[in-house]
Amino acid sequence: MLVAVCGPNEATVEESMAAERLGELLARAGVTIVCGGRGGVMAAVCRGAKRGGGATIGILPGTNSHEANEWVDYPICTGLGEARNAVVVASGQVVIAIGGGLGTLSEIALALKLGRPVITLHSWPLDPALLERARARVEEATTPDEAARRALELLRMAHPN
Amino acid sequence: MLVAVCGPNEATVEESMAAERLGELLARAGVTIVCGGRGGVMAAVCRGAKRGGGATIGILPGTNSHEANEWVDYPICTGLGEARNAVVVASGQVVIAIGGGLGTLSEIALALKLGRPVITLHSWPLDPALLERARARVEEATTPDEAARRALELLRMAHPN
Amino acid sequence: MLVAVCGPNEATVEESMAAERLGELLARAGVTIVCGGRGGVMAAVCRGAKRGGGATIGILPGTNSHEANEWVDYPICTGLGEARNAVVVASGQVVIAIGGGLGTLSEIALALKLGRPVITLHSWPLDPALLERARARVEEATTPDEAARRALELLRMAHPN
Amino acid sequence: MLVAVCGPNEATVEESMAAERLGELLARAGVTIVCGGRGGVMAAVCRGAKRGGGATIGILPGTNSHEANEWVDYPICTGLGEARNAVVVASGQVVIAIGGGLGTLSEIALALKLGRPVITLHSWPLDPALLERARARVEEATTPDEAARRALELLRMAHPN
Repeated sequence: MLVAVCGPNEATVEESMAAERLGELLARAGVTIVCGGRGGVMAAVCRGAKRGGGATIGILPGTNSHEANEWVDYPICTGLGEARNAVVVASGQVVIAIGGGLGTLSEIALALKLGRPVITLHSWPLDPALLERARARVEEATTPDEAARRALELLRMAHPN
Repeated sequence: MLVAVCGPNEATVEESMAAERLGELLARAGVTIVCGGRGGVMAAVCRGAKRGGGATIGILPGTNSHEANEWVDYPICTGLGEARNAVVVASGQVVIAIGGGLGTLSEIALALKLGRPVITLHSWPLDPALLERARARVEEATTPDEAARRALELLRMAHPN
Repeated sequence: MLVAVCGPNEATVEESMAAERLGELLARAGVTIVCGGRGGVMAAVCRGAKRGGGATIGILPGTNSHEANEWVDYPICTGLGEARNAVVVASGQVVIAIGGGLGTLSEIALALKLGRPVITLHSWPLDPALLERARARVEEATTPDEAARRALELLRMAHPN
Repeated sequence: MLVAVCGPNEATVEESMAAERLGELLARAGVTIVCGGRGGVMAAVCRGAKRGGGATIGILPGTNSHEANEWVDYPICTGLGEARNAVVVASGQVVIAIGGGLGTLSEIALALKLGRPVITLHSWPLDPALLERARARVEEATTPDEAARRALELLRMAHPN
């Protein structure tokens, strides 16, 4: 089970702490983290996942695996630049967005477009009427524990037994 | 001069009318339209551009040029699916978003991430504090004439004389 | 009608002369050239096309339109790096490869994979048995005039009348 | 350490046996396999890697993880179609090509273009003069054991001790 965690390369302390906690909780539940592989929220969620005993995949914008943060187990070198955001979210069965970067906003939008369930944590509020028109829904969590719990519920619904 | 115009495949009558008017105004000013090449806002802006005597480029998600609407002069077949949105906005010197699709939202975000000037027309309102933190700015136009005028000003500032 | 012309950024004089002649012949027949937009064969084919009165599209690896050679009318900024080669060939109804670059070889292969007719001119010879196994065919031209004539025949077969 | 293994979706029995053996040998040496995630050579190398106790990553052309063969541990959904070939090879520190598919040929070319060391096994012979002009080199192995041994040597040279 892969969960995509998105968030900015330049994160606040709060965002990083939330991401690290989230990574640990998901990893303990057997989830593999897929993310953009760089710093900030991406580094924090990978660090948490490793502490939780999980695996981490970093979908990098460039072609050099040394771009990856040190907690990425599997660096995927895309060379696609910002277009790699579409690959990050397509690879998650659930997508969790933390914080307010522009890349993060693109990932929320691309995830919804692809029909992936999206959970946000301190991220972009989106116009409810436009979301409804697009038949899309974003779940807002207020803590990493709530985000993790909800992601695990969604995974269980997709893979019963 | 290329301007990227983004908007949903399933557009309202209002959005289509705005897009058609916008395409005509930009084309008359010598601008080439680059868009996603499909229906809705994309078809309308191309139709307007052809009436205005301009050229149109459609950056298609698939590999079949027949996906393009009939007002696309140059169909670019990417085969990239949703990741082609990054190509659409990177190819515009200015990006104009019309209406409230999810792909459109991803295009606004990707354009801002790439540093392209973004003008919206009846599109997603975005959280001002998060935009400011990302040092990004969206200009909201209320009519296609205003959006066209502002886009032309931005192009002139980038290419004086 | 779009024909993709592929060839190395660092071309020999012979390759450049062939590309320029090819661009001119195709343009005079009403064909638009799509290429990688950079130097060498790409610049030469665009220069020829402009002399022939045609239009040129450059599918660039980066996100800066100034990467394009000066004979590109429409620079498409992909930001995809080498993955943009797939976009170049998918956008041509016929693909012509000139010269022996590695990117060119990838374009021949991707074009065949996508089912595009491929004509080569002083380019990679490919193992006939492996081509046959893949049910693929490459036509080898020996002059730009022959390559242009054959490309135009293929376009006419695809678009009779 | 990631090694990219490329080969056709429709493989011969010989190619599949070679790929399975190769996957097992690499996995036993602690290498993670990255491949296109589909059938044929891709399925065989993953099956071998799992028998050898290793991990496997499948870089899929579509957006549905069920496209992956059953021995893929980590399905990466790109939605990029054939352009995903560039991601497969960029993600390997060494690239091994087995058999004669067209996608495989594109992967050899893209890997060389990106400067990745390439080992072939029963794959496309390439013109030596054109390779030399491009300052590229392909090592031809005749058995999976030789290919694995050579790949491990190359990895050790890149990461001494």
